[in-house]
Amino acid sequence: MKELTVGIDIGGTNTKFGIVDREGNVIHQGNIKTADHEEFQDFFDAMALSLRESFTSLTTDYFIAGIGIGAANGNYYTGNIEHATNLRWKGVLPLSKMFADEFHVPCILTNDANAAAVGEMIYGNAKDMKDFVVVTLGTGLGSGFVCGGVLLNGHHGIAGELGHTSVNPTGRYCNCGKRGCLETYVSATGIKRTVYKLLADYLEPSELRGISFEDLNTKMITEAAHRGDIVAKEAFEYTGRILGMKLAETVVHTDPEAIFLFGGLSQADELIFKPTIRHMEANLMPLFRGKVKILHSALQNQAAPILGASSLVWDHLERKKNRATV
Amino acid sequence: MKELTVGIDIGGTNTKFGIVDREGNVIHQGNIKTADHEEFQDFFDAMALSLRESFTSLTTDYFIAGIGIGAANGNYYTGNIEHATNLRWKGVLPLSKMFADEFHVPCILTNDANAAAVGEMIYGNAKDMKDFVVVTLGTGLGSGFVCGGVLLNGHHGIAGELGHTSVNPTGRYCNCGKRGCLETYVSATGIKRTVYKLLADYLEPSELRGISFEDLNTKMITEAAHRGDIVAKEAFEYTGRILGMKLAETVVHTDPEAIFLFGGLSQADELIFKPTIRHMEANLMPLFRGKVKILHSALQNQAAPILGASSLVWDHLERKKNRATV
Repeated sequence: MKELTVGIDIGGTNTKFGIVDREGNVIHQGNIKTADHEEFQDFFDAMALSLRESFTSLTTDYFIAGIGIGAANGNYYTGNIEHATNLRWKGVLPLSKMFADEFHVPCILTNDANAAAVGEMIYGNAKDMKDFVVVTLGTGLGSGFVCGGVLLNGHHGIAGELGHTSVNPTGRYCNCGKRGCLETYVSATGIKRTVYKLLADYLEPSELRGISFEDLNTKMITEAAHRGDIVAKEAFEYTGRILGMKLAETVVHTDPEAIFLFGGLSQADELIFKPTIRHMEANLMPLFRGKVKILHSALQNQAAPILGASSLVWDHLERKKNRATV
Repeated sequence: MKELTVGIDIGGTNTKFGIVDREGNVIHQGNIKTADHEEFQDFFDAMALSLRESFTSLTTDYFIAGIGIGAANGNYYTGNIEHATNLRWKGVLPLSKMFADEFHVPCILTNDANAAAVGEMIYGNAKDMKDFVVVTLGTGLGSGFVCGGVLLNGHHGIAGELGHTSVNPTGRYCNCGKRGCLETYVSATGIKRTVYKLLADYLEPSELRGISFEDLNTKMITEAAHRGDIVAKEAFEYTGRILGMKLAETVVHTDPEAIFLFGGLSQADELIFKPTIRHMEANLMPLFRGKVKILHSALQNQAAPILGASSLVWDHLERKKNRATV
């Protein structure tokens, strides 16, 4: 009987789920519209129904070992989604308990960046690492820390909010209510803001002058930079400088073996990696220089959030096994 | 038979050691001059001799469970002191192995701030905590992190160098080779530098104008502030502002329950605690506000470094026991 896990990634618009084996093959995948359900209970019922239908579609002899869920504001300790700003249901949502009651399997919830970190450890480039950081570069900047082989949750279950470290206390306005947070500079939105700042500062011609803020995206900036556009190139340099400076601060906190970059912005490859590495090294305490690698995440495809979520279950089971056999 | 541990604190000038019981009572204490020994082997032999003499002086029936050592640049993984700038012996010193070979007991080495963190957990105010930070304010600024009940060592064994996070990349020169590191502002030396900066900036009279940089110390600044000296008071405000801002960054990394302040500067009580707490809260991501306590270390006496070092052994033994019984 094949052991399988379920990975669920709850986003504001779509909730994606998949059934995943130990090697990270997604053998069934589905999707429901998060925002279509006015009541949280309706969303849960639709999700449970879709999952049961998926199970019946499986042709192999299987056993579901558990359900892993990644969601913004997911708290590992409580199993609740707490006051998520990207969902229409407010307050505290006891998701872990509801899934566990429904399917009678272990159910592990954490935030999406933490799920990405565990995913990297179980299926990705951090398989042999015990101390590393995953930085997810999407609309915002998320991060997950693994220290000594264990996901760092912190006392309140909210560790790893690198996106809200400070670049400039009087800088750009952030959704969190502060100003100058890292994610206002280093994210898909951050680099757009930087392009607009540079278009304001510079006199140089740029193909980006013809694109509205709403239409602009990371791919356009990347392609313009590859064509030699001076504003686009400078936007990557500016973004990498800030990311490198702040990663130097993270390194002296937890002393990781590597930092993985994940998400759209990281796919600009050398454009973002080169300035990030250069400025991280320049800003590092000499004791740490040359010691910490900046690497690509291995989980860059569409199924990455599902893999991340499903990996929480394998991690949970391995931890349980280790406790039992030592 | 009473179970005892040895705690050794190796400083550049003095090496203090003590024999300590499980409750943190130092039942014998000794001292040898670190800097008097030209060769490292001579220092080790003198240390081993002093320890043996201490053991014979004990009147109770005892059993030495292990030796814990705190030292700048002490590496937990290797058991070596590596390229310490405060010692006259250069290179890599395999201290842990030498003590273990000599006394046939477990020997645990780490840096002094990490030892302070474990000491706080075993004997101090963090007895019931699993996620906290200890910040040691001495000549420099050291820090030790406990995450999930375990000392954070990092991949290279050098985690927790908060003293070398950046306040201002073009700021004060630091011993580490960088500029503007936190410890150049927040430490016994840092606040002296701040007093001198303020004496340069301000026109106001101050009792500190009559004291040379070499003669000035934290106690004088504290007493002047209590007497209402405007420069001394402003120096604490300035120091607390910078410490608070940087601790806000640390909080979003590891999400601790509390941050303990240890050492001379922390004994200025409200003068340093008030601005630190105010500026930490003001700079925190809203999600974390009101959640993290700034507290006094319970280990403020002369024996604190010995207690910290000895606690490494109790921690090691408990971890071993837990592994065996789960």
